[in-house]
Amino acid sequence: MKKPDYHIFVCTSSRIGGVQKGFCHTKGGVDIMAGFLEEIEERELGGRVFVTNTGCFGICEKGPIVVIHPGNVWYGSVTPDDVAEILDKHIEGGQIVERLAL
Amino acid sequence: MKKPDYHIFVCTSSRIGGVQKGFCHTKGGVDIMAGFLEEIEERELGGRVFVTNTGCFGICEKGPIVVIHPGNVWYGSVTPDDVAEILDKHIEGGQIVERLAL
Repeated sequence: MKKPDYHIFVCTSSRIGGVQKGFCHTKGGVDIMAGFLEEIEERELGGRVFVTNTGCFGICEKGPIVVIHPGNVWYGSVTPDDVAEILDKHIEGGQIVERLAL
Repeated sequence: MKKPDYHIFVCTSSRIGGVQKGFCHTKGGVDIMAGFLEEIEERELGGRVFVTNTGCFGICEKGPIVVIHPGNVWYGSVTPDDVAEILDKHIEGGQIVERLAL
């Protein structure tokens, strides 16, 4: 199968018990996820860049968390307003957004 | 921060609307996730190996899906019985479980 060049994981505090609640969810995790989905479509990055929502990464106090592979880059305190910059610099520019990196 | 050496992502069909339903969920996604959590604790791999549940990876017909980074390795049709083998061969042995690889 054709795998993505970049895979963006966004914490939406989705628990395996079927409940979605927690720090990242409270702080805009779903809006961050929706922002990535929208921008990826607008920029026609679909197929090359995947975005997947997740459960907890275990460092809630640094959330909302976004993890990008390859590179194992972890971003913290992400807001919906940071989505465009992450796509500009990291995904399209190949550079880490240092101010958000953990 | 100390990041994990391996990160295992398990689809539990967690949707951003807060509902958990779909192919991977129906086919044991939560049991696969629980199996990884249990085995990682038993093998004392915590900290070095993370496991995170996710929403849809977009290839439901090949599910349940497990994605492992680094390496961008995608496994399909995973069952709870495969958890030990994935940890033995891939995480502890450094080899891909070819029979499940997509």
